[in-house]
Amino acid sequence: MTKPDSKRSSVALVTGKPANAAEEQVNNGSSDPSVSGSPHHALTPPTPTKHKSAKQVSRDNLSRRNTESEVFDDGTNTFFWRAHTVTVLFILTCVLVYVTLLEETPQDTTYNTKRGIVASILVFLCFGVTQAKDGPFTRPHPAYWRFWLCVSVVYELFLIFVLFQTVRDGRQFMKYIDPKLGVALPERDYGGNCLIYDPGNTTDPWHNIWDKMDGFVPAHFLGWYIKTLVIRDWWMCMIISVMFEFLEYSLEHQLPNFSECWWDHWIMDVLVCNGLGIYAGMKTLGWLSMKPYQWQGLWNIPTYKGKIKRMAFQFTPYSWVKFEWKPASNLRRWLAVLGIIFMFLLAELNTFYLKFVLWMPPEHYLVLLRLVFFVNVGGVAMREIYDFMDDPKFYRKLGQQAWLVAAITVTEFLIVVKYDPRTIMLPIPFFVTQCWFLGIVLILSWTLWRFFIRDITLRYKDARRRKQEVTGDCGRPHGNGGTATPSGRSKLNGISESLRHRKS
Amino acid sequence: MTKPDSKRSSVALVTGKPANAAEEQVNNGSSDPSVSGSPHHALTPPTPTKHKSAKQVSRDNLSRRNTESEVFDDGTNTFFWRAHTVTVLFILTCVLVYVTLLEETPQDTTYNTKRGIVASILVFLCFGVTQAKDGPFTRPHPAYWRFWLCVSVVYELFLIFVLFQTVRDGRQFMKYIDPKLGVALPERDYGGNCLIYDPGNTTDPWHNIWDKMDGFVPAHFLGWYIKTLVIRDWWMCMIISVMFEFLEYSLEHQLPNFSECWWDHWIMDVLVCNGLGIYAGMKTLGWLSMKPYQWQGLWNIPTYKGKIKRMAFQFTPYSWVKFEWKPASNLRRWLAVLGIIFMFLLAELNTFYLKFVLWMPPEHYLVLLRLVFFVNVGGVAMREIYDFMDDPKFYRKLGQQAWLVAAITVTEFLIVVKYDPRTIMLPIPFFVTQCWFLGIVLILSWTLWRFFIRDITLRYKDARRRKQEVTGDCGRPHGNGGTATPSGRSKLNGISESLRHRKS
Repeated sequence: MTKPDSKRSSVALVTGKPANAAEEQVNNGSSDPSVSGSPHHALTPPTPTKHKSAKQVSRDNLSRRNTESEVFDDGTNTFFWRAHTVTVLFILTCVLVYVTLLEETPQDTTYNTKRGIVASILVFLCFGVTQAKDGPFTRPHPAYWRFWLCVSVVYELFLIFVLFQTVRDGRQFMKYIDPKLGVALPERDYGGNCLIYDPGNTTDPWHNIWDKMDGFVPAHFLGWYIKTLVIRDWWMCMIISVMFEFLEYSLEHQLPNFSECWWDHWIMDVLVCNGLGIYAGMKTLGWLSMKPYQWQGLWNIPTYKGKIKRMAFQFTPYSWVKFEWKPASNLRRWLAVLGIIFMFLLAELNTFYLKFVLWMPPEHYLVLLRLVFFVNVGGVAMREIYDFMDDPKFYRKLGQQAWLVAAITVTEFLIVVKYDPRTIMLPIPFFVTQCWFLGIVLILSWTLWRFFIRDITLRYKDARRRKQEVTGDCGRPHGNGGTATPSGRSKLNGISESLRHRKS
Repeated sequence: MTKPDSKRSSVALVTGKPANAAEEQVNNGSSDPSVSGSPHHALTPPTPTKHKSAKQVSRDNLSRRNTESEVFDDGTNTFFWRAHTVTVLFILTCVLVYVTLLEETPQDTTYNTKRGIVASILVFLCFGVTQAKDGPFTRPHPAYWRFWLCVSVVYELFLIFVLFQTVRDGRQFMKYIDPKLGVALPERDYGGNCLIYDPGNTTDPWHNIWDKMDGFVPAHFLGWYIKTLVIRDWWMCMIISVMFEFLEYSLEHQLPNFSECWWDHWIMDVLVCNGLGIYAGMKTLGWLSMKPYQWQGLWNIPTYKGKIKRMAFQFTPYSWVKFEWKPASNLRRWLAVLGIIFMFLLAELNTFYLKFVLWMPPEHYLVLLRLVFFVNVGGVAMREIYDFMDDPKFYRKLGQQAWLVAAITVTEFLIVVKYDPRTIMLPIPFFVTQCWFLGIVLILSWTLWRFFIRDITLRYKDARRRKQEVTGDCGRPHGNGGTATPSGRSKLNGISESLRHRKS
């Protein structure tokens, strides 16, 4: 962490923590005492010239104050937090001199091409890890998140390249990464019955259940535990979890491995694996939003136990923001939440379809790497999207990681469509179409009612009530008429109302 | 420009403009009134808790205050300054859908590979131009400088790839960019005599001079004009200009096109082209450091003439920092300035050697593109290096563009060494070796004298004088003894001395 960042973070405190990505920034990178030593008090008094901004600030405050943890940081700056740009440049130069001048270049063009590409990627990572823009997260180290940002860029460029190849070339291209790839997958048999107690099998009538108890159970659990930490909302997690089972039902005519027994869908997946994962996730979220965020330098801690605890806590977040998605609060948030759920489900489907069209065996390490990648970038992206939504103005940028994750999800989907349009276009069963149609109609009509019809009704009622009050108030002296109108419409705009009171 | 940036810029003002890259940042991206409306006064009063930081700040001030222009900005925010992250993402998606799904993919693997690489680069530029970290410059638009940053990344990765190929493959690889490349350059005849007035030629005895009056004369002039704007220092420009002619003398046994007539070296190049270029550059620098930096929104200007003037001024810097390199002030700055001159000359030499080893004809458009590229990134890089040097602490990062330019220069040089070690290793004539040896010895001994011997001498004198004063002061009452010691050593530390006075 460098000085300018910490300055920015101190400002985040001055301006009452506006909905800006800086508030999880550390000021670890600076020993500047203006940052440590509770800058709250040092810089707080807003002078009269700052009227309008103070109003904006407190509006931000209202929506944010309760969802954010307070942070105390003694601003100790260790070696690991200093900038090492020149050091990295020097080491890079030395490595390049050694590899390219002192080692003999092999005469194999293919090998050199591969080596050149790998070297380019490594140099890009060197640059990015030292120099890329910091995201909202800073624990265990900002460089860790810069690394994953750069990996996203490389992955997205790889996907774009694959997208521009013919289907045959694209599949064969995977051979460059692993010679075992580029081979059509064998057809799998997903037959069998769905009896929980199978009397036909004399050796073990419960075999159907034991069959399902494979490595995917802890994987599902862990996956949903992490997803809960990413989404930070019980309702959204449950909706996505259930929606995905519906998607599996709807798409089992395209990908046979989506077809599962009913109890596998609802009991094993939704209830047991996902449910427990979400439950554990929510417990962790509770702990994270309650735990004290006190960052002391390791050398300022007297006891060994404290030191070890501090080291372990380095792997917990620097501060915490509870997500309050509030989808029903306005149309923009509602559409945004729908969009997030859509993209989330699309990314989940891509996992399966991409394997299918690029002929990747499910147990291949690239599949696992992709998941590890998404675990790391997903959290950052979701936080950036939340910050972006939370911003009352449109000036803010969508965070870089969120931008990339969106681009990656779209590119992956385009690859799926391009590489296997036939599977994607397989006619959907009539019953499934009906269900989806019904669902979409329901959502649309709720949207219409909530954000258009209800609004008009409320406004009408509000106007009528006001009119009545004006006629009733006529005799009384003019004063705080505004306060006496706790109408439905004002309740909707509750925040701005109370703001005006705060200011006065 | 986005909100957080503008916040940062307002802080730069609050904390008395520390030597941080933010001070050329616009607050254009924000209509937040806390930023406009002279935040100097709104937030200035430093409370007692900020003691130490105030001291640091004023030290920064002392070195910076006189070299920086004052900026007035009404903070008007136009469409062009808003973030367009989501728009860019949407357009990108549409283009990808069109190109990859609606157009038929050609069956030509080579063509597709090229197309895939170009598409990856374009997507990277899309990402970078909207999302990369901003540098110190903001006019005409921050996206312009983000674009060049991304181009640097692409260029550096290209160079790394070329570096890892065999010499043959690397030269043939250029064919993918332009099929005319990858062909050995014809030997050129650089013979002829050096007579200014050539009586042997009866038609035109001045032909030698007219021969030199080609497109390179305005190119040299323009080049040095821009270099002066980049370096912003008369002395450094002259030293680099003269040094380069010495390098041409020293290396003409390697690259024949370095051999020129003596009057071509010293009169045409150094005096006429470079000299006039530097002169014009210094005049422009004077204007830039004097001109008022008042930024009004286009719609706030009443007259048409004013509007047009404002539009033209969009292409001038947002604010101005006079560079004061002060190489003799301390060892670190001295070594840094030597390093900068070294890297600058290396980059200039690379222009010629790279053409030579990669078989690029001098008139090829890639050669010109490389120069345009360096013109654009050089200014940013130099400013970042200046900021980095100016920082009293070591916490600051070397700017991203400076990092990349350094990496590019090194990589280019490594390519030259790898691709043609024979030419580089051609034995240097004895006379030339002697001259360089002498030069290096002179620099080393000056360094030794200036930063080690002179320092020790001054310290010794200082100690002696103090001793004498103490014996002289013995009778007088103890008071402001410190103030009465304007010794040589204190003069060296003049800044910190005067600081202590400022504080008290």
